[in-house]
Amino acid sequence: MKLVAVGTVAFDEIETPFGSSGKIVGGAATYIGLSASLLTRGVGIVSVIGEDFPRETLDFMRQRGIDLEGLEVLPGQKSFFWAGRYHYDMNSRDTLATELNVLLGFNPKLPEAYTNCEYLMLGNLDPAIQNAVIDQIPRRPKLVVLDTMNFWMDQAWNELMRVIARVDVITINDAEARQLSGEHSLVKAARKILAMGPAYVVIKKGEHGALLFHGDQVFVAPALPLEDVVDPTGAGDSFAGGLIGHIARTGEVSFRSLKQGIVVGSAIASFTCERFGTARLESLGIREIEERVKEFERLVGVE
Amino acid sequence: MKLVAVGTVAFDEIETPFGSSGKIVGGAATYIGLSASLLTRGVGIVSVIGEDFPRETLDFMRQRGIDLEGLEVLPGQKSFFWAGRYHYDMNSRDTLATELNVLLGFNPKLPEAYTNCEYLMLGNLDPAIQNAVIDQIPRRPKLVVLDTMNFWMDQAWNELMRVIARVDVITINDAEARQLSGEHSLVKAARKILAMGPAYVVIKKGEHGALLFHGDQVFVAPALPLEDVVDPTGAGDSFAGGLIGHIARTGEVSFRSLKQGIVVGSAIASFTCERFGTARLESLGIREIEERVKEFERLVGVE
Repeated sequence: MKLVAVGTVAFDEIETPFGSSGKIVGGAATYIGLSASLLTRGVGIVSVIGEDFPRETLDFMRQRGIDLEGLEVLPGQKSFFWAGRYHYDMNSRDTLATELNVLLGFNPKLPEAYTNCEYLMLGNLDPAIQNAVIDQIPRRPKLVVLDTMNFWMDQAWNELMRVIARVDVITINDAEARQLSGEHSLVKAARKILAMGPAYVVIKKGEHGALLFHGDQVFVAPALPLEDVVDPTGAGDSFAGGLIGHIARTGEVSFRSLKQGIVVGSAIASFTCERFGTARLESLGIREIEERVKEFERLVGVE
Repeated sequence: MKLVAVGTVAFDEIETPFGSSGKIVGGAATYIGLSASLLTRGVGIVSVIGEDFPRETLDFMRQRGIDLEGLEVLPGQKSFFWAGRYHYDMNSRDTLATELNVLLGFNPKLPEAYTNCEYLMLGNLDPAIQNAVIDQIPRRPKLVVLDTMNFWMDQAWNELMRVIARVDVITINDAEARQLSGEHSLVKAARKILAMGPAYVVIKKGEHGALLFHGDQVFVAPALPLEDVVDPTGAGDSFAGGLIGHIARTGEVSFRSLKQGIVVGSAIASFTCERFGTARLESLGIREIEERVKEFERLVGVE
């Protein structure tokens, strides 16, 4: 498998000040897989679901060329479920419910065909699981990208430090970068996080875009100013999927290709926000992505 | 006078989580004047001060080529004073004290030489005063830029609407753009504000950069990621001074020159944040500004 994405495949129920989603398909690996598979072949997902997960979604993923050998189905059990409510700013949110279900005791075993992957995307999960996945890959992939969140900083600091030291890229939001580093300045925060191991630090700022740090180099990607944000859920995972998907497509790991990947990821994430859940990602095509990448370039061009 | 800046010339006392300024020189017209005079000659200030205002600051302004004929000095009175405390995020702040002093009953009279100005910068003030300044200019300037804040939306809505309809550019922060328009989406907010009269809307987002809207066109300028923000006071006014100063220097009013002006203004604002008050602006030179503008261009370049 060329690109392996590890993360949740789950149900979400989302409320925003402007509408509700009802119970829909979500999960980090779902968004990463749908996003990356728009850019490259050979995407496989490692996750666990219950018997309640809709067969049509799995069929759609396969149609998109996503390999599901790494997706364990636990008979008689229920899939992971998360419910949340966004604040008026559509940036911050409260968790209303978390039902771990199949995630309890999740201990992923990579299919044989996944253990020689070139690109590994570790979606937000318990860092112990992220480490266990790396342990199953004998030859270091060309690029390992890690996503995490504040919860693991509070609950599993040592495991988190251990996995951060083993990856090439970490994607993290601005508040989390501040928490992880103890620095308010994002420049200083990024420098401290680079010192923890990764060669690249990506700081996601939602509607304010993203920053990429590599050595002393910095790249700033704006977010596309959107007419309407319907649902930002999955934007970060779509972004990460687009980033690693672009790298996998070009086969180049460099500051230059990471910059391009961030613009591609931002473009895909901007689509994701236009509808609830994965709806927009499912209807998306490469032409639309290329169009939006050009829009990004026009957006920052001074002439 | 080529460029006239109207606004406060005053004292500030600033606390941040990392230090305090003591009582220092501040005021919108001070920052605007110091910033614009780095870029163009023929800058004049319209304001009012008390007898307590330091002569050295006035001397320094004159040295910078700033004309002070429009700066009224009221004998026996005290200058405007503002004290504030920044939160940990260095973006939001609380006002600790406001002493209007000379601002009470301020009714600016433009010197004869100012009434034919080509560029007019209306710094944040009571919109009734901003209107009274426009009334004294018989021939419409090439460009009028307006800055305002939420206070005037609450206190003087009708006057504010009247002045907004008379200007070419409005600069406003993101929260204020949302309040002024009643729209959460900044794209929709900008469209509504454009419909109020100005041909250009600039939305300032502090450490997240700035957006420029003109018809259906959008430009996104990132902010330079700073190692340390010592004091953001005056950043918005330095930005506005750089913007209008650049337009005055080039003599071109267009989407293109506004974009350039926003990058120049952002560069100068980033310097302002490096020290308390006007300290960094006072030591700044055009070479440093040009260097930083190049840094901005590198920052967003994808290759």
